[in-house]
Amino acid sequence: MSKLTYPLPKTVVELGKSVLDFNDRAAASLRECFEAAGTPVANLISSPGTGKTELVIKVCEELTARGVATAVLVGDCATDNDARRISRVCPMARQIVTEGLCHIEASMIRDGLVGWDLELIDLLIIENVGNLVCPSDFDLGETLKVALLAVTEGEDKPLKYPHLFATADLIVITKVDLVEACGTDMEEIRENIAAINPGAEVIETSARTGAGIGQLASVLLGAKAATSGGGRDSNVVSGRRYS
Amino acid sequence: MSKLTYPLPKTVVELGKSVLDFNDRAAASLRECFEAAGTPVANLISSPGTGKTELVIKVCEELTARGVATAVLVGDCATDNDARRISRVCPMARQIVTEGLCHIEASMIRDGLVGWDLELIDLLIIENVGNLVCPSDFDLGETLKVALLAVTEGEDKPLKYPHLFATADLIVITKVDLVEACGTDMEEIRENIAAINPGAEVIETSARTGAGIGQLASVLLGAKAATSGGGRDSNVVSGRRYS
Repeated sequence: MSKLTYPLPKTVVELGKSVLDFNDRAAASLRECFEAAGTPVANLISSPGTGKTELVIKVCEELTARGVATAVLVGDCATDNDARRISRVCPMARQIVTEGLCHIEASMIRDGLVGWDLELIDLLIIENVGNLVCPSDFDLGETLKVALLAVTEGEDKPLKYPHLFATADLIVITKVDLVEACGTDMEEIRENIAAINPGAEVIETSARTGAGIGQLASVLLGAKAATSGGGRDSNVVSGRRYS
Repeated sequence: MSKLTYPLPKTVVELGKSVLDFNDRAAASLRECFEAAGTPVANLISSPGTGKTELVIKVCEELTARGVATAVLVGDCATDNDARRISRVCPMARQIVTEGLCHIEASMIRDGLVGWDLELIDLLIIENVGNLVCPSDFDLGETLKVALLAVTEGEDKPLKYPHLFATADLIVITKVDLVEACGTDMEEIRENIAAINPGAEVIETSARTGAGIGQLASVLLGAKAATSGGGRDSNVVSGRRYS
């Protein structure tokens, strides 16, 4: 069977590089600010329908119960449905409407943070546009790049979308309550993840039953320890980026 | 709550237009050939994990039983898993490995058809890369643009990804056998589809139970009637495009 491959034409590569360079510079500035404020940032990337929003809601509830101040920026091509849902449990929740763009860029995060004081945010969660391909190329200054896949999506997604799963710091399996109904082979999912990203931390979750939510919340929050932990001069952070 | 919007910057719009113009020209050539051969072409677009491949397999089985010659081109960022699965029931199945690209372009379809005689193909199915955003912008010369969503993905996808669902000729709901397990509100899905694409034909399917497969196969095949039905000079078609 023929197996056709398509390296990008030269002109596209050049433009893509330019766009990514621009994004990388904005992401580096963001990362500096997040580290200065000591705020860990999780960038959640998955297919549409993996259950990111319901998971974020459960994590926010868990963290609120622990007294942790969580903020959420959520991207979608259209509608502010997700921010409205999340804001019921998390007062700092904002929608980024990308108007059809297939990913969030660092500049959108910078603008989305306007008026928020990073010093008062213990964890920032970014829920990216539902897409397993494009968001993976755009650094948002995050501490953790989190790839999610639902048991309803089949076992082979890590193999078919290797760029995301290979570069993720954390992999979250969602909707594990549906394993039996879907006939999902969990061992095969774990093997496929291990083949693409050996040693990756994997958390199995269900927003419906609450399985794995506490563990996920702790890992996202614990990412704080991994930041360089620079200064905490609120004026500098606000003055440079978000005022 | 602030609702941020991001129109594409001018430079991106200009390049995007150029890329799409190039694709549109290739797609127009393809469409001419498909119409000359009288071959209907369905371009299947959905999230990763919606169950396109399993559905294609069931449709191929159904059509083979009817004596219909079906060919399949299937796109993925990596692996030829899907073509291998489909080839068990459909001898004309080829993988297009996009090497990380988030969609199929018309030129890839043109190359993917090399060596196949369109005159001998009663239906060509294109299974696009799993992505609800980017593939929608790239015309592949298809007769039917088919948007699919699984009941496992929630009810609001048509609202969040309006470009695809508004421009689809046919909308297929998959995995309806999982409605109860997922607690999906089918009426809400139907309402959301109607809000975005009033009058769109909607087919509810389950590859597991076989529900809707016969109807879907008939609609895809019936799209033939909608083509302009040009000449059937195999030499011309082969000579111009696929020899």
